[in-house]
Amino acid sequence: MPELRKDPITGRWVIIATDRALRPTDFVRDKVQIRGSGFCPFCNGNEKKTPPEILSYRKDGSARDTPGWSLRVVPNKFPALGIEGTLNRHGEGVYDKMNGIGAHEVIIETPQHNLTLATMPTRSVEDALWAYRDRILDLEKDRRFKYILIFKNHGEAAGASLEHTHSQLIALPVVPKRVREEVDGAREHYNFKERCIFCDIIRQERERSARLIAENQAFLVLAPFAARFPFEIWIIPKTHQCAFEQSQKAEFEQLAPILKDMLARLDRVLEWPAYNYIIHTAPIGESAEDYYHWHLEIMPKLTKVAGFEWGTGFYINPTPPEESAKFLREAAQPAEAPVVAQEESGPR
Amino acid sequence: MPELRKDPITGRWVIIATDRALRPTDFVRDKVQIRGSGFCPFCNGNEKKTPPEILSYRKDGSARDTPGWSLRVVPNKFPALGIEGTLNRHGEGVYDKMNGIGAHEVIIETPQHNLTLATMPTRSVEDALWAYRDRILDLEKDRRFKYILIFKNHGEAAGASLEHTHSQLIALPVVPKRVREEVDGAREHYNFKERCIFCDIIRQERERSARLIAENQAFLVLAPFAARFPFEIWIIPKTHQCAFEQSQKAEFEQLAPILKDMLARLDRVLEWPAYNYIIHTAPIGESAEDYYHWHLEIMPKLTKVAGFEWGTGFYINPTPPEESAKFLREAAQPAEAPVVAQEESGPR
Repeated sequence: MPELRKDPITGRWVIIATDRALRPTDFVRDKVQIRGSGFCPFCNGNEKKTPPEILSYRKDGSARDTPGWSLRVVPNKFPALGIEGTLNRHGEGVYDKMNGIGAHEVIIETPQHNLTLATMPTRSVEDALWAYRDRILDLEKDRRFKYILIFKNHGEAAGASLEHTHSQLIALPVVPKRVREEVDGAREHYNFKERCIFCDIIRQERERSARLIAENQAFLVLAPFAARFPFEIWIIPKTHQCAFEQSQKAEFEQLAPILKDMLARLDRVLEWPAYNYIIHTAPIGESAEDYYHWHLEIMPKLTKVAGFEWGTGFYINPTPPEESAKFLREAAQPAEAPVVAQEESGPR
Repeated sequence: MPELRKDPITGRWVIIATDRALRPTDFVRDKVQIRGSGFCPFCNGNEKKTPPEILSYRKDGSARDTPGWSLRVVPNKFPALGIEGTLNRHGEGVYDKMNGIGAHEVIIETPQHNLTLATMPTRSVEDALWAYRDRILDLEKDRRFKYILIFKNHGEAAGASLEHTHSQLIALPVVPKRVREEVDGAREHYNFKERCIFCDIIRQERERSARLIAENQAFLVLAPFAARFPFEIWIIPKTHQCAFEQSQKAEFEQLAPILKDMLARLDRVLEWPAYNYIIHTAPIGESAEDYYHWHLEIMPKLTKVAGFEWGTGFYINPTPPEESAKFLREAAQPAEAPVVAQEESGPR
């Protein structure tokens, strides 16, 4: 008998198949492989082929838009939104619209074409987190923006158009609906219980370990109870905090290795799947301190999502999260590879 | 400058690209082709290869689960939900769940493998509508069910696992979240304005024709103002009515040709795209008569929806609905093909 489970934050019901649960080898998909063929605008030396950089991390004092960087943030060459102008909110009969004002940036996490977050040095993963934070803090000053979305499309099947590893940032003048729903759901729980729903989940999951995947000092990793997708993973800070960008240095130092570890485990268990991850954080300027709890959601792209799933918000997950968690727990490496040595092995 | 548009029913914002709007030829995709290779359990003569039929339309008085049918409804061989049992709603700490009780049926619209809704006789399309209605009316009697979802996945890219044309029905013990949102949004509008939002849309769209695609006596076809997808199409009954299954005979007689026509236009304009359609109808047993208005939404599968779009509910549509509507308006056939002749040309 399949099971219907309700997401405790948003109230979304999901069908979890329990009888013939799909295992990692049951999913047919293309492996995400780095081919490296053709010209890549994100590679070292091709800095002039992107719009001028907004931010870069450079240890050698090299000039902007030249080699010498370890991370670059550039505007998206084909932005979904335009940065210049006023919102000009207006109606048209029953309809409402505004100008498509916003920021659309690309975070290029390494100059090296052949790396991914799972294979690059942990230090570089941490730098990506710092870049997310730096850009959020800068863009938050712009009063037109209500939400800043950080996400990653890894692999063509997940929507990545360039294979060189990168994340994206979209600053929006409205709060996306699913974010609104999650934030409102968390607030309702708080109003009723005077507790954070995510803190409640952490407490309950730590007691019963069936969906627990990993943890370190600062973060808990779990397969969510009402997972929409097989091998969906949530990384949640153990300390209550509503916004990603408020994280302390010590937290980013803990998030980088656990994020890298999880992506490496996905590569091991699912053989280099395409995936998306999204940072779920509080809307700008909302006092969500009490009730919202930021986290990161990773969604491997294993199943074909049919239109009716977008149309109805109704998901069928063929792999129970308890199964996913088991595979991912068992994929732990016995010991961490010596990261520092790797970092220093590159060309100088 | 792109435009941000708000769906007046659900409040969902969508980014509509206006500068470099994608035209039909810009979308790279696989054509949906009927290959007809291999064994097909939905074909004439293979009736024993599906679970026993629940309903069939047969003019010749032939026995069930034998040839002679023009339409069959059978249980899905791999159902997402089980029909037997009790819901057994229960909690588990902060979580809620219930047994996956529901119906999952397949409507096989024709015994002929090489037809689609766009190419089969209009009469057969109408029969599919009657079958949807017959099954809804039967399943509505089961007090465990709160919503009946009718949808079609056409083509592999849209999630169809068998190419022989068919629709699906899922009866659910809960109302899916997106349905809830739409119904609640319509109710809010009604509470505020004492008018149906869909009726308001129909009135406004008929005045300004930029998004109007077609109409007949009973139905209006339009590209919605805040379309999530390129070439998204809504077919809306002109007369206010909350539930699909309450439609009159005269309405199904009007819906069949306009639905067939729209799917044929998609084939013409987009060269046989994969698509999904979903019937949006009122939840069972909710007195939504005043404020909800059933309709059918068609979503061609042209773009890769990245995970962040599911994760955030935030859509970027590269083709303004006004452009989509123009292409689809111009794809009208000068005259209707003589349907009766077609119907009578088959083997007897």
